[in-house]
Amino acid sequence: MDDLSKSPDAQALANCPVSRTLEVVGARSTLLIMREAFFGTRRFQDFTKRVGIGEAATAGRLRELTASGLLEKIPYQEPGQRGRYEYQLTDKGQDLFAAIMSLRDWGESWASDGHGPTPWRFTHRDCGEEVHTVTRCSAGHDVHAGDCTAVREPRRAVGDPVS
Amino acid sequence: MDDLSKSPDAQALANCPVSRTLEVVGARSTLLIMREAFFGTRRFQDFTKRVGIGEAATAGRLRELTASGLLEKIPYQEPGQRGRYEYQLTDKGQDLFAAIMSLRDWGESWASDGHGPTPWRFTHRDCGEEVHTVTRCSAGHDVHAGDCTAVREPRRAVGDPVS
Repeated sequence: MDDLSKSPDAQALANCPVSRTLEVVGARSTLLIMREAFFGTRRFQDFTKRVGIGEAATAGRLRELTASGLLEKIPYQEPGQRGRYEYQLTDKGQDLFAAIMSLRDWGESWASDGHGPTPWRFTHRDCGEEVHTVTRCSAGHDVHAGDCTAVREPRRAVGDPVS
Repeated sequence: MDDLSKSPDAQALANCPVSRTLEVVGARSTLLIMREAFFGTRRFQDFTKRVGIGEAATAGRLRELTASGLLEKIPYQEPGQRGRYEYQLTDKGQDLFAAIMSLRDWGESWASDGHGPTPWRFTHRDCGEEVHTVTRCSAGHDVHAGDCTAVREPRRAVGDPVS
């Protein structure tokens, strides 16, 4: 852990990928919309009811998430009704799953506030076991924060040898 | 993925652990302070310089993170100087590592915005390989969002048999 204050990367660190992710999904209601999308919620009224932020805020968040490419609007029409849209997770949206799960895991461990067990979980479809987030190195070792070194060098390019 | 709108858990879902985590660390500047703490930053002036949100905001965020128990104030004194405090990660703070890493991974994959490779990474101290976040079930299978089922039942109690 070297002295970052002496680094020309200080500016680059301020504009880091954690920061850029938070620019897209940093609003609490945005992440709650995404949580609902992982639950399988697709329709505007269901998002509104389940997130509980009101119709205007829900519409705004869905518009932002669609513009950012995390959700995709798909038209549908029920018999005798006007055409509507539902919202489906894109690959970019699906890839936020680890972030949602890690925020859930931390909240359950450290901010349960007497709420008792969380009334939902995600299980692996093939074996039924519960899903969690873990940090792991490219050589396959599970690692915790205390086992890591911060390195001020870019990630390897794709295709570079690993392990 | 069943119909949550018919569920008595709708209220409980609104007050979920993802939401509670965001109550604690949902502010962008709060997570950037935590990112710096994982880099080994300990002192007020260094947090201020590296996060770039100004002294007042830095002081406010450090106060919140200390009150929430993610950082701990440790007194230190350099020769000839007045006593000061530095900020160290607690276990509760260390456990946010997976969330920070998953937000980083997503940002680098999906919000690079022409910035090129991130100028920092975490490596496993024992083997030097880069650290990432993965989602895994309790039986040890790596799983993606598309391999999961949302279940509206509490997590198993600690001590229940797994796999």
